[in-house]
Amino acid sequence: MKKKIQASIIIIGNEILSGRTQDTNTRTISLWLNSIGVNVSEVRVIPDIEEVIIETVNTLRKKYNYVFTTGGIGPTHDDITASSVAKAFQLKYQTHQEAFNILQNYYKPGEFTDGRQKMTLMPENAELILNPTSGAPGFSVENVFCLPGVPSILKSMLGGLKNRIAGGEPILSRTISLRTIESEIAKSLTEVQNNNKDIEIGSYPFFHAGKLGVSIVIRSEKQSKIDNCCSQIMSFVKEKKIEIVER
Amino acid sequence: MKKKIQASIIIIGNEILSGRTQDTNTRTISLWLNSIGVNVSEVRVIPDIEEVIIETVNTLRKKYNYVFTTGGIGPTHDDITASSVAKAFQLKYQTHQEAFNILQNYYKPGEFTDGRQKMTLMPENAELILNPTSGAPGFSVENVFCLPGVPSILKSMLGGLKNRIAGGEPILSRTISLRTIESEIAKSLTEVQNNNKDIEIGSYPFFHAGKLGVSIVIRSEKQSKIDNCCSQIMSFVKEKKIEIVER
Repeated sequence: MKKKIQASIIIIGNEILSGRTQDTNTRTISLWLNSIGVNVSEVRVIPDIEEVIIETVNTLRKKYNYVFTTGGIGPTHDDITASSVAKAFQLKYQTHQEAFNILQNYYKPGEFTDGRQKMTLMPENAELILNPTSGAPGFSVENVFCLPGVPSILKSMLGGLKNRIAGGEPILSRTISLRTIESEIAKSLTEVQNNNKDIEIGSYPFFHAGKLGVSIVIRSEKQSKIDNCCSQIMSFVKEKKIEIVER
Repeated sequence: MKKKIQASIIIIGNEILSGRTQDTNTRTISLWLNSIGVNVSEVRVIPDIEEVIIETVNTLRKKYNYVFTTGGIGPTHDDITASSVAKAFQLKYQTHQEAFNILQNYYKPGEFTDGRQKMTLMPENAELILNPTSGAPGFSVENVFCLPGVPSILKSMLGGLKNRIAGGEPILSRTISLRTIESEIAKSLTEVQNNNKDIEIGSYPFFHAGKLGVSIVIRSEKQSKIDNCCSQIMSFVKEKKIEIVER
């Protein structure tokens, strides 16, 4: 069996902490990582403060196989991710020639301004993460991958990263949605979890179209284990005569 | 001047880390805390694992004035926030009599099942956080406030907490949205930030109705400082003949 591959995500930006902006990048990155067999173990949302970025990157890059950062790689004064990551790794912060060439070609003559040139400053020897949407690349240093904060641009860049991430087996999941309430199934579900200790079973109440329900989510790398666990759940569902909404 | 009051939020739940569920509680809590003068300095999303919950609660409660947790206080096997917080504070985990009375009254005779009774197990001497939506209360121990994960229920419980949080001056903000791109204003905005070091100025590109723009967000506890900073921004906006979308 392959070892579990674990990642963490660092969302960098005062606008998320203040509540002004709803983060959606966590979900985008998590779903993508799951699909290539990487488990997200921790997410931190931190402000645009250099010492905090340095400390968080240095803590998490030692703890997990991969770290992904979002935000703070644009042209303005509050974009300090690249310089902070350079400091975290004690690397020079300098013009990345390949990034410079890409942006010089991308913009019309005369439009490659100082602000835009700032986006080519990166930690020494960073590897680029190409940006098919808007030119300016992200970058990686060792196991730390720095992506932009704008969700549509971030999304377009993930595909190009796939062969740089060594994932495990994809994490599979199945959801069984029931017309019941959690307290009705809590005891039986605990038994199923105790019989299947290596499987992750989650229970999530929902309220949809005026009716209450519970979704049970079973996650594992092994389809056979999921199937086995599902039939144990379906057995108490039948016994209790609970209506199945979806499975 | 009052000292800055700082909080952190711990989102507890595998369903957020896996990407299955989009977290919205961070934004709800942050906006509410801002309105009562509390700044959110850090958010962590962590799995339903006891040691991780204990360690994260113990780290953050020493670092910040307040800690808010969401999730893991329901009746099922994966709801381990209350027992973990009890361990974090080295308190007994036992039936909370007031919570028990509330739920006994809330449910019809015979419906106050074992699963539901689990929701009245809390750290010794916890203070309740009343739940106007669905009965089962949250709780607080010292500066740690434990709320449920279901967004609508969480929202309904915040109002009742107001007099238990000693906030600072409310954090005010103003947004100026411009029809421009970040690299066009980066240099001027850096100058304004350098002239106003105690003010938080953020720059956020947006794409709306087919057009690009940039929102500049100015945040401070002092209206006069925001006004002053705004007029400095408006002065370069005029000079550069940039169209104002909203201010």
